[in-house]
Amino acid sequence: MEVSLKRAAEILAKANNIIVTGHIYPDGDSLGSILALSEALASFNKKVQMYIDDDIPLVYHFLKGAENVQKPEGKVQADLLVVLDASDDERIGKVKSITDAPILNIDHHISNIKFADYWYLDTKAAATGEIIMALLNIMHAKITPDIAAALYTAIATDCGFFRYANTTANTMTQAARLIEHGAKPNIIAETLETKPLNTILALKEVLDSLEFYDDGKVATITLLPELIEATSTTEGFINYPRNIEGVEVAVMFKVVEEGSVRISMRSKEVDVSKIALQFGGGGHKRAAGCTMPGDIKAVKDQLLSAIHRHVNSGQMRFEQ
Amino acid sequence: MEVSLKRAAEILAKANNIIVTGHIYPDGDSLGSILALSEALASFNKKVQMYIDDDIPLVYHFLKGAENVQKPEGKVQADLLVVLDASDDERIGKVKSITDAPILNIDHHISNIKFADYWYLDTKAAATGEIIMALLNIMHAKITPDIAAALYTAIATDCGFFRYANTTANTMTQAARLIEHGAKPNIIAETLETKPLNTILALKEVLDSLEFYDDGKVATITLLPELIEATSTTEGFINYPRNIEGVEVAVMFKVVEEGSVRISMRSKEVDVSKIALQFGGGGHKRAAGCTMPGDIKAVKDQLLSAIHRHVNSGQMRFEQ
Repeated sequence: MEVSLKRAAEILAKANNIIVTGHIYPDGDSLGSILALSEALASFNKKVQMYIDDDIPLVYHFLKGAENVQKPEGKVQADLLVVLDASDDERIGKVKSITDAPILNIDHHISNIKFADYWYLDTKAAATGEIIMALLNIMHAKITPDIAAALYTAIATDCGFFRYANTTANTMTQAARLIEHGAKPNIIAETLETKPLNTILALKEVLDSLEFYDDGKVATITLLPELIEATSTTEGFINYPRNIEGVEVAVMFKVVEEGSVRISMRSKEVDVSKIALQFGGGGHKRAAGCTMPGDIKAVKDQLLSAIHRHVNSGQMRFEQ
Repeated sequence: MEVSLKRAAEILAKANNIIVTGHIYPDGDSLGSILALSEALASFNKKVQMYIDDDIPLVYHFLKGAENVQKPEGKVQADLLVVLDASDDERIGKVKSITDAPILNIDHHISNIKFADYWYLDTKAAATGEIIMALLNIMHAKITPDIAAALYTAIATDCGFFRYANTTANTMTQAARLIEHGAKPNIIAETLETKPLNTILALKEVLDSLEFYDDGKVATITLLPELIEATSTTEGFINYPRNIEGVEVAVMFKVVEEGSVRISMRSKEVDVSKIALQFGGGGHKRAAGCTMPGDIKAVKDQLLSAIHRHVNSGQMRFEQ
């Protein structure tokens, strides 16, 4: 059943023993939202347990309470399961099976499949953290500095530190309020931007793999299995081809294992979600991806031909 | 004479023929502030002329009106010279000598030497653009989408897209208002992040020059004259050593010409302005710089010894 945010607050108010979870491969938004809502609920004397069926990336360990997030095991007593920032119950892994409590889902993903008993979905929010901010307001919860830091992390990471198209005036206004409540924008940015040396060294090789097609309108990087193993993360690598002057479409080919290539695309104008869809993937207009079987050479040829057609048809409209 | 922002608005209201300028090596804040204030003044039927004694970097050409900024030459009729974002009249180059009109200076630099006839200084503002925003409000100027884009650029660039320590709740609130008035945060970010291919290729070599000292607490990069000539900009390179896990102090050595080394330092805790001062430079606690004579090897030895003492004395406090 779809519920208003006010109704969601009432459902939370009635429950006493609450499990809060989010998606696997936790990111700043899911984790920050979980930590913020859990601290707020605990301040109303609720019993709150946080579960994520995955490891918490090191980079988020600075958030207060991250150390209390548990991995699901066995059965857990609860009268409500709150699922944040996950569009599908498959995305919460084994947390699904630790309780039979009714599910309240709060999310901002357009792909949400409305799997929960109660759901609140705001696809205009840049982050689930923005919705939690509004929810805490309705609940009259005190925004402590720790909650502020968690929500600021949630919002800032999901809108690329205010650089993505989902950044709205409301995103900025909420960030302003969180700073007033003690979030330190520079400390959070600095902490999240810290990278292991292995990632910086991998970047050198990534730049060595740069290739250009279609008169420099398409730029690619290629990551072979060795390199992927040597770096803690490949996040952000695609920004290098993407940010080069004249590049319309940037592609990262990741050969995770021989015979299978994961592809990420970023574009300025071309709708790359159409290209991804063609190969069984998906995404947004300007950021999409897919996984293709075959060796890297064959996959490259196939994908670059598909991109070539889009880049060229896009061009023609302007040239005539 | 120090003036309030309201008084500054009155001085502007009384003038009819106004020159607006900013510092040489124009950045997003000085240029964005100039364009925004000039458009607002023109909307009140003032004659406004914009001058900068320097080229406008390509990356800012997307801002409406940038093409109308002139280089100073000869004498220009005016009854007011408005100097934005410059702390010193040396910083406006030859614009100083094109008019004898009284000077109104609006700035946020703590180093401001109060050279003007009238000055308004707010060192808590993250950017001069933040002050211009408040000024336009007092003037009841209409914030057009072009003014919004110019001021958003001014604010965002001076606080590192909301990642530096000068980012306040007010910075964010102003950014929110500018988005409401038509600034497109993603388009501005994408435009400003675009880099020429030569800079991305230079980055490869920059990463090859990475060196570590003091158990990885100090990381350096070294740019030789060839490399500096080959890249359109060296901006942002220092973030690579700075963002490596465990690094306390990052240093960029730029050998602009044989026998002279420009040094930029970034730190997390150590007060690098003290080290810069020791060698005739200056800056802030966490970002400072200086220029040292001598060959690169000798300069490196000298500076790294100085840093070593600070990193170590900083350490000892915690170890005891």
